[in-house]
Amino acid sequence: MEPKPVGEKYQIDRPLEKVAAIDQFFNPRSVAVIGAAREEGKVGHVIFDNLIREFSGYVYPVNPKASSIHSHKCYSDISSIPGPIDLAVVVIPSKFVPSILEECGVAGVRSIVIISAGFKETGIEGAHLEQEALEIAEKHGIRFIGPNCLGIINTRNELNASFAAAVPEKGNIAFMSQSGALCTSILDWAKGERQGFSKFVSLGNKADVSETDLLQYWREDNLTDVITSYIEGIKNGREFLEVAREVSTKKPIIAIKAGSTEAGARAVSSHTGTLAGSENIYSAAFRQAGIVKADTVESLFDYALGFSNQPTPKGRKIAIVTNAGGPGVMATDACERADLQLSQFSFETIEGLKKILPDEASIYNPVDVLGDALSGRYKEATEIIIADKNVDSVLVVLTPQAMTEIKETAKALSEIRKVVDKPMFACFMGKSAVIPGIEILKNHRIPNYNFPERAINTIKAMVEWHEQKVKPKRKPTKYAVNRDKVQEIFDRSRSKRRFHLSETHALGVLDAYGIRTTKNKLAAEAREASDYAEEIGYPVALKIASPDILHKSDIGGIRLNIKNREELEESFENLIQDAVRYMPEAHIWGINVSEMITGAREVIIGVNRDPQFGHLIMFGLGGIYVEILKDVSFRITPVNKNEGEEMVNEIRSNLLLHGVRGQSRADIESIVGTIQRVSQLVTDFPEIVEMDINPLMVFDSGKGSVAADARISLGE
Amino acid sequence: MEPKPVGEKYQIDRPLEKVAAIDQFFNPRSVAVIGAAREEGKVGHVIFDNLIREFSGYVYPVNPKASSIHSHKCYSDISSIPGPIDLAVVVIPSKFVPSILEECGVAGVRSIVIISAGFKETGIEGAHLEQEALEIAEKHGIRFIGPNCLGIINTRNELNASFAAAVPEKGNIAFMSQSGALCTSILDWAKGERQGFSKFVSLGNKADVSETDLLQYWREDNLTDVITSYIEGIKNGREFLEVAREVSTKKPIIAIKAGSTEAGARAVSSHTGTLAGSENIYSAAFRQAGIVKADTVESLFDYALGFSNQPTPKGRKIAIVTNAGGPGVMATDACERADLQLSQFSFETIEGLKKILPDEASIYNPVDVLGDALSGRYKEATEIIIADKNVDSVLVVLTPQAMTEIKETAKALSEIRKVVDKPMFACFMGKSAVIPGIEILKNHRIPNYNFPERAINTIKAMVEWHEQKVKPKRKPTKYAVNRDKVQEIFDRSRSKRRFHLSETHALGVLDAYGIRTTKNKLAAEAREASDYAEEIGYPVALKIASPDILHKSDIGGIRLNIKNREELEESFENLIQDAVRYMPEAHIWGINVSEMITGAREVIIGVNRDPQFGHLIMFGLGGIYVEILKDVSFRITPVNKNEGEEMVNEIRSNLLLHGVRGQSRADIESIVGTIQRVSQLVTDFPEIVEMDINPLMVFDSGKGSVAADARISLGE
Repeated sequence: MEPKPVGEKYQIDRPLEKVAAIDQFFNPRSVAVIGAAREEGKVGHVIFDNLIREFSGYVYPVNPKASSIHSHKCYSDISSIPGPIDLAVVVIPSKFVPSILEECGVAGVRSIVIISAGFKETGIEGAHLEQEALEIAEKHGIRFIGPNCLGIINTRNELNASFAAAVPEKGNIAFMSQSGALCTSILDWAKGERQGFSKFVSLGNKADVSETDLLQYWREDNLTDVITSYIEGIKNGREFLEVAREVSTKKPIIAIKAGSTEAGARAVSSHTGTLAGSENIYSAAFRQAGIVKADTVESLFDYALGFSNQPTPKGRKIAIVTNAGGPGVMATDACERADLQLSQFSFETIEGLKKILPDEASIYNPVDVLGDALSGRYKEATEIIIADKNVDSVLVVLTPQAMTEIKETAKALSEIRKVVDKPMFACFMGKSAVIPGIEILKNHRIPNYNFPERAINTIKAMVEWHEQKVKPKRKPTKYAVNRDKVQEIFDRSRSKRRFHLSETHALGVLDAYGIRTTKNKLAAEAREASDYAEEIGYPVALKIASPDILHKSDIGGIRLNIKNREELEESFENLIQDAVRYMPEAHIWGINVSEMITGAREVIIGVNRDPQFGHLIMFGLGGIYVEILKDVSFRITPVNKNEGEEMVNEIRSNLLLHGVRGQSRADIESIVGTIQRVSQLVTDFPEIVEMDINPLMVFDSGKGSVAADARISLGE
Repeated sequence: MEPKPVGEKYQIDRPLEKVAAIDQFFNPRSVAVIGAAREEGKVGHVIFDNLIREFSGYVYPVNPKASSIHSHKCYSDISSIPGPIDLAVVVIPSKFVPSILEECGVAGVRSIVIISAGFKETGIEGAHLEQEALEIAEKHGIRFIGPNCLGIINTRNELNASFAAAVPEKGNIAFMSQSGALCTSILDWAKGERQGFSKFVSLGNKADVSETDLLQYWREDNLTDVITSYIEGIKNGREFLEVAREVSTKKPIIAIKAGSTEAGARAVSSHTGTLAGSENIYSAAFRQAGIVKADTVESLFDYALGFSNQPTPKGRKIAIVTNAGGPGVMATDACERADLQLSQFSFETIEGLKKILPDEASIYNPVDVLGDALSGRYKEATEIIIADKNVDSVLVVLTPQAMTEIKETAKALSEIRKVVDKPMFACFMGKSAVIPGIEILKNHRIPNYNFPERAINTIKAMVEWHEQKVKPKRKPTKYAVNRDKVQEIFDRSRSKRRFHLSETHALGVLDAYGIRTTKNKLAAEAREASDYAEEIGYPVALKIASPDILHKSDIGGIRLNIKNREELEESFENLIQDAVRYMPEAHIWGINVSEMITGAREVIIGVNRDPQFGHLIMFGLGGIYVEILKDVSFRITPVNKNEGEEMVNEIRSNLLLHGVRGQSRADIESIVGTIQRVSQLVTDFPEIVEMDINPLMVFDSGKGSVAADARISLGE
């Protein structure tokens, strides 16, 4: 099989040949095992054994100390092998790996799996070794998987280039994992469950080949319908996101993100920073990339089972057929928790069910065909229900009662599956008598779950994937802004080595990006302040202005609702005195005088820059909603209008903006606009490491909003 | 075996003999099957077959139309059987059941399982039949299980008085279910999983024997260590609660509550009513009764596996031993989500681990013994860790890697289990190679879970059970109150057929129960109002007073912060006019004048009476916290001080009361006191169907609180 070019469509700054090389890992004509060992139990022996067991290409052992292994002639080095080598598997001590890579490069090997451990995972020395390997590979145009991995498997050609015991059955699910040990567990589990895979990859340290490469490759792989992944961390988050976003419109990507203790690595002086823990970042990233997030390995494969065997439900309306009330109730509960709806049947469906079901049966959803239902009754009822336009998917629940025809019912459902293209799921509850039925379902690609909740959660995951897939993909709005002015403010600040902008400057930046700000002025003296207050009109707010005081309210550095000159002058002096008392070291610029906004609701828009994913934007209602209830939403920038709207609607307290109990509706459009303008700002100026508009004062619908305070911090 | 007296200790208005009779269901010396059938496939045949298969007592078929079944002489009626009958199983059409019960009563049978369907579940006629059966049973002192059930099983004596196919293995878990079909599924599942049970009961319609009876019985049953239950609804909630509260201090009760659409059945004109859906009521009830709530059948048995095999962890500190990083990360994530903590090891533990583990191993929690760990290394590490005082429980994770000794490791852990009495859980991940190891673990009562999350969630459930068990059980505080005054107010209202108390009366009730209320007076005329305002001092609040207007603010019936006589008189007239305009039919008493409270935080305390569980008390912060965020907590009354405190601390926004970001602390003691006084009020006056104190104005710590408005509605 010729390597086929992949990934052309959504190439992101990576040379085509680097991606094309990925196919050679899975479809090599010849494989060399460098470090193949004669001694049983050694990894180099296991891998060689695994490779020669079923794979039909050439397999060459390389080991200078052996003349043959299992009757295969052993080569002393890669260059002495006659003929080209498509794939090398390296199982030698780490310190020899760089020189072997060099040899491979010279010999023309372009795809290598490095099983050997002893690299970055062991510390600084190992990291250097890994870097060295990477540089040699790049020099020769070599792509490599690992180091420190279990290897790879392709079920199609029974290539087992790993030290895993067995090749799983053929299937249409591809799996990749950062944890090699998890691979061994999943392979063992797959064997017990007879779960098939298309390709199976242990990624190890991901020095070169990453999730992103495999996503691009599997997008084009006709043998893979569903991509699954176990992820602990992503090195190049942006690129991963872009590729995943593209791939997920074609094939579902289901991923577990494990580990959630990276927050410490980032700046956390802002609310956004504090709240933007790794869990929130990955949740936002996955959502925006259309990746289905699974919380456990169990749910990962529950979802994969659904996605890989059934068409995607086109909506949230589900019909349940059951031969028992209790499990019907449980399924209904699960629907409610999963935010799915029980279908309202059409008149024809109700009439149809009335005709075929006994009087005591429940003909409304969930449909109870009763405990004495034989396979025929199940079949007729399911056929009627699945034809209803108000039904997006069907879950058939079966409890093994005295008269229940388990196998026949499974067969009857399989007949329906053959002719109807609407998603259908089963829940044959039990683990002994129901097994023959479950086998039949499996053979006819009807996914079975042992309890209703797992089926319902799978349907939910599929529906959500469908919903995001059909959602129109809009480009972020491009506003006309005064970019030069911002550049000028930033340049001036940096020239003075000021990385936290003054409030006046921060508001100036917003202003340049079309975000309305309160009228404000920095006053060095009380007299100057009161003149300005006369100009903009009382009441006004006074705030201490100092590059060293970030949280002004914490030191009592804010006075609101100043009504006249006397009050202003007194407050001015008090503010200065307090600041000097609380923070004697602080450099104080003066007092910021600004107009008071009334009759508006306070919201916060914040930004934090993540080393992997770039700028993360946060939205929440002001004050305690953010600080105590942590009721906020996140997206990775740039955000478009839809995403801005989602951010507003995602918080629990969003009803407060929509106007309830006699309150007026807030200008949500203005919030969404401001979110997008901020997104554009940080996209234009990646050096912004943190910013907060806190509060953005939002008026009633149609009346806009105004930023009353802002902080911006600059980095590299 | 002699029936033993049970349930004496916590008898709640039920005659002893009624409870004692329960044992006869499970340990009869003789059983009659009334409706035993010759025809294979018939339920009456299956049951008789099941009974004679293993059970060693006498079994008599009763059927006037047959002379013998399976070589057993068949009796035409119960009275013709020679010798006493301890248990009868009835499998005849429902209409004959009452007369058969009568015959049984005369013949001295005192325990009956009614399998027959066709009772309350079919409608009014069936309900009458069920009532008739119940009355006959009561007359004769008969206890019966069902009708409309699958039957019962006792694994100890292999009594299978059901039409389920097989008796599960012996075990120490008792199970009861309202759904018979779920029983068949669980039995089938148990067979596949080799899950043992002590007793297994399908409760059916629960006309007589209920969950409460079985809880009392199983409390005393030495063969049962864990009680599990599937519940859709509870008929006598109060009694169930009291019994469960007692039983759960001795044995864990784990229950699923299915179905959550009963809210419609109750009065929902108050916030409390709206929020007190069945899910909230049962959650509160389960928590107060110490019942472990499971959301799915899977978690029910996950928990049962832990409880039935291991001592309860005495705290939240968990240690993880793993041979792979990835699953260790997953377990850590699960701990974080479950609010468990990873133990901080003692110095000795760290030193000990250093000695026995390779340099590359992680000696901190989670402990990574590395992929090449043999059973010896697992054993030594686990022994050191489990001895650490900072460890409350240990989870051992194993992935089947190349060198992993699965069986030997299981054996090594079993050795530890024999000598150490600290809870230990395993997660041998996989489903094929790991199976022999899992079998060994099972035989040594080390619960194994295929993925870390399920193990962690089980540990969480066990810890929470332990925590509530050791919590001191306090009696509700008994306050000195003026009960007579309340009686008088209620009597007067009812005599006028007023079931919604006026605000003045409602506040009067609170006052009588020692809850401080705002000074207030009902004024029929503006002049009267302003005189009173002068007396209590401006500013004041005016509120429309009408028995027909429950939500005053919805029709603009409230004016706050009235500062002087002119303002008051104008507002007075406006309020009356508005009320007449919006609700021309409403009877208007006048205007309520009350003092304005400032500088206080608003909270709500509400009560709703549930037909099954009685009064449910709710707490939340005022306004949007209740209405939009639904951030409230519930308990069933009476509540003691601990429960009152829990209610306050349980809401998400509780930090707002504790004083954060420079705010002062609210008088939480006063809130807790008010909750308890309200609890005492509704306990003394069960006729209160709904009440709200909204708002209760809470001052700073030490300064008390005052009820600014209240509504009370009376029922029967």
